[in-house]
Amino acid sequence: TPARLSSLLLMLSAGFHVAALKTPHLLGRHRLARSFSQQRAVFYKTLYFDQQIDHFGFLENGTFKQRFLLNDKHWHQKNNPILFYTGNEGDITWFCNNTGFMWDVAEELGAMLIFAEHRYYGESLPFGDESYSNASYLNYLTSEQALADFARLIENLKESISGAQNSPVIAIGGSYGGMLSAWLRMKYPSVVIGALAASAPIWQFTDMVPCGDFYKIVTQDFANSGINCSKNIRRSWMAVNNVSSTDEGLQWLYKEFGLCSPLKEEDVGGFKGWLQETWVNLAMVDYPYEANFLQPLPRWPIKVVCSHLQFDTGVSDKQLLHGIAQAVKVYYNYTGTAVCLNISQTATGSLGIRGWFYQACTEMVMPMCTDGIQDMFEPQVWNFQAFSDECYEIFGVRPREHWAGTVYGGKNIGSHSNIIFSNGGLDPWMSGGVTKNFSDSLVAIMIPDGAHHLDLRYNNQYDPQTVIRARALEVQYFKNWIKHSTIT
Amino acid sequence: TPARLSSLLLMLSAGFHVAALKTPHLLGRHRLARSFSQQRAVFYKTLYFDQQIDHFGFLENGTFKQRFLLNDKHWHQKNNPILFYTGNEGDITWFCNNTGFMWDVAEELGAMLIFAEHRYYGESLPFGDESYSNASYLNYLTSEQALADFARLIENLKESISGAQNSPVIAIGGSYGGMLSAWLRMKYPSVVIGALAASAPIWQFTDMVPCGDFYKIVTQDFANSGINCSKNIRRSWMAVNNVSSTDEGLQWLYKEFGLCSPLKEEDVGGFKGWLQETWVNLAMVDYPYEANFLQPLPRWPIKVVCSHLQFDTGVSDKQLLHGIAQAVKVYYNYTGTAVCLNISQTATGSLGIRGWFYQACTEMVMPMCTDGIQDMFEPQVWNFQAFSDECYEIFGVRPREHWAGTVYGGKNIGSHSNIIFSNGGLDPWMSGGVTKNFSDSLVAIMIPDGAHHLDLRYNNQYDPQTVIRARALEVQYFKNWIKHSTIT
Repeated sequence: TPARLSSLLLMLSAGFHVAALKTPHLLGRHRLARSFSQQRAVFYKTLYFDQQIDHFGFLENGTFKQRFLLNDKHWHQKNNPILFYTGNEGDITWFCNNTGFMWDVAEELGAMLIFAEHRYYGESLPFGDESYSNASYLNYLTSEQALADFARLIENLKESISGAQNSPVIAIGGSYGGMLSAWLRMKYPSVVIGALAASAPIWQFTDMVPCGDFYKIVTQDFANSGINCSKNIRRSWMAVNNVSSTDEGLQWLYKEFGLCSPLKEEDVGGFKGWLQETWVNLAMVDYPYEANFLQPLPRWPIKVVCSHLQFDTGVSDKQLLHGIAQAVKVYYNYTGTAVCLNISQTATGSLGIRGWFYQACTEMVMPMCTDGIQDMFEPQVWNFQAFSDECYEIFGVRPREHWAGTVYGGKNIGSHSNIIFSNGGLDPWMSGGVTKNFSDSLVAIMIPDGAHHLDLRYNNQYDPQTVIRARALEVQYFKNWIKHSTIT
Repeated sequence: TPARLSSLLLMLSAGFHVAALKTPHLLGRHRLARSFSQQRAVFYKTLYFDQQIDHFGFLENGTFKQRFLLNDKHWHQKNNPILFYTGNEGDITWFCNNTGFMWDVAEELGAMLIFAEHRYYGESLPFGDESYSNASYLNYLTSEQALADFARLIENLKESISGAQNSPVIAIGGSYGGMLSAWLRMKYPSVVIGALAASAPIWQFTDMVPCGDFYKIVTQDFANSGINCSKNIRRSWMAVNNVSSTDEGLQWLYKEFGLCSPLKEEDVGGFKGWLQETWVNLAMVDYPYEANFLQPLPRWPIKVVCSHLQFDTGVSDKQLLHGIAQAVKVYYNYTGTAVCLNISQTATGSLGIRGWFYQACTEMVMPMCTDGIQDMFEPQVWNFQAFSDECYEIFGVRPREHWAGTVYGGKNIGSHSNIIFSNGGLDPWMSGGVTKNFSDSLVAIMIPDGAHHLDLRYNNQYDPQTVIRARALEVQYFKNWIKHSTIT
């Protein structure tokens, strides 16, 4: 049960899954918050495609309806390109609304847009409402099955849409969706001529990058956004320990943070985990303009957060935590409409989070660690065995530590072609990203002042030059791939 | 049960699986026949590696012992190359003994040799003796699982063998094993720097090549090996029908062919199927010297077969069938030691044949057809639905007609690199082979007077120049790949 997910598992999945994790909330608030965002109304057809539940075995021969969204407003010419979003761990309509880049470039490229939902998320549930009910129904939730879904769908679209037979297809995705885009090009180069993998940490696996890099980047974002900011957050963990050691202190924290329910002694670990995840989320969405990706937020939200944490490091524990409370509310209550803050929000039973946790507990094993010195968090080592035991207790399956490296090639990917890896310098997931060119056609694009896949968002008047250049370069690569695509 | 396999299924699988099909017989006769073959005694260690039964799901977490053979006689230097045979549908020791090319080039390349057994064949049985007992145990018999086995094994060897960490690995295979070599490079380019796919019909799938090409090549081999040869075989089907229409005729056929048991009316279809498969097998092993691949045979065996079929087309049915009987005995009794001929030989319950039939009934759907005009066989159309129904009856699974095309890219493989496709001009499987270069590193080598993967056999004094040149070119590609391999 999700409630039993420990800090280890939360830590592992911190941030990355938040899209899914927060999706239900976000979707709920979406309309209210629209004035904050730069989102435009988008129009698409909602369609469904019959997919095999198991592409890699023949005993289970059932099918399910995979949802996908289609817009062909600008696709007028036979053989014009198709931009294909490889959906990640959440409702596809949400990714559709948050991938403005595709809508912005559709006209220039004369492109059809497709957004394909990932199995086990949104409406694309292989066993309907029972999909998460047991280990045997969950058995088909893997990235390999998802890639096979995308490949079959693309082939079917090209066969069934008149004039699309020879349309070049480009995969686009962000975060886990970006990993899927890169992997789709690697594993099924016959179906996509190239891929834009935005903020895709394809190397965030065992033995590929240091486990501490992720939280170091989070820390740098705060260190660079205000005097004493990361230092005060680093101090805050001990302050929480101190203050929460008395009943009076627990009561004070409850009031000060405006929590939805009183804080008990056994909740303190969860409370700190919730704070930690809040900082991670802020690092991911530190965008240069008001936006509503995970929450409605001001422009450069970490600067606003840090404006509450500028005091020198000699203040009392309660003074410090007062600042932390103010800072946290920037994230949870920028609109001023939140009634209270819910620290169990990160562990609700939504499909999104359960799905991602299952994936983390099987093939998406991403080691994370902190040392409290190079980062602003409490020290925590990476312990695969403990993690594995926990996964077994929750899902009845054990992660395979090295499988992702085997199946997707680890750092030895130089033989592939036509993949753009874009990375935001503010994004903690850059830690697992491809940040150097391998060749002319396997390239990295750096966006130093970008957070998590900023390049996939709509154009905005506050966009830094670096993301404007990145998007232009991406479109240039697309055009080049399209020009040289010879599909027979 | 294998006995229920119809001619449709036999036709589909004809020839290709014979390696597996005949393995038990061949191995039994091996010692006796050694003087015929050019085979040398080979020495290797027999080792086992624990493989996941299911690489693509996490509920089944069991493992099995995959067998592999290792020879490091010539592997003296750190980082020297490894030649890795991707085992196909049979006992790996048999492929090891029949892939002399690897033994011949090991010294020149300073290479370690590995021969890895394919799951569900030989000793590599995921569920031991029960592996074929039901559909749920058979569920993990797929090419994708086999490729994942090879990838995991290679990674493990490089980690565990001192000095092999940076050894470049080249995949080598013939027939289905050659398809696996090509696919291993396509799907796991991080583990092999290149592949030699010998006589590998990766395009023998739905909508990729005409279904009649295979039997056309068989026919050409006979047409080119003697006057009236293919014509008389084409006439023989009706002659069988005529003669077998009476009890006396059935008795005559039984005696004339020296069958092991009397021929009954209901056996006539099976009898013709057995003849057809005999001609196919001969086309596959039409080697320029005495050899013992599927059977001990004279040099250029089809010429010898055709020497019994030179009479003009006006002879009586019995005269014609007398010639056919003499011709068939070239294949089944060259050594003169056969007591009788067994027409159910092609449908025994050996693991090999059942495994390949299962694969043909799931993903390895290879349409075959004959018209009796452009080929010398009785007309038979390709009927996917009938085939699917039959598979369902036998194995409880249905083939997926288009899956192999999706997962392995069909004819659109131009983005891959470092694969050699070698093809024999006499080999019927050339019909599904890659016979033209895609690029400098995705190349086809033609061996006009070669049968099924002649290039993978030991050097022989009777080798035609074309196969000598092909092998030299293959080694040149290997050296070039090795020189340019930069594994970090």
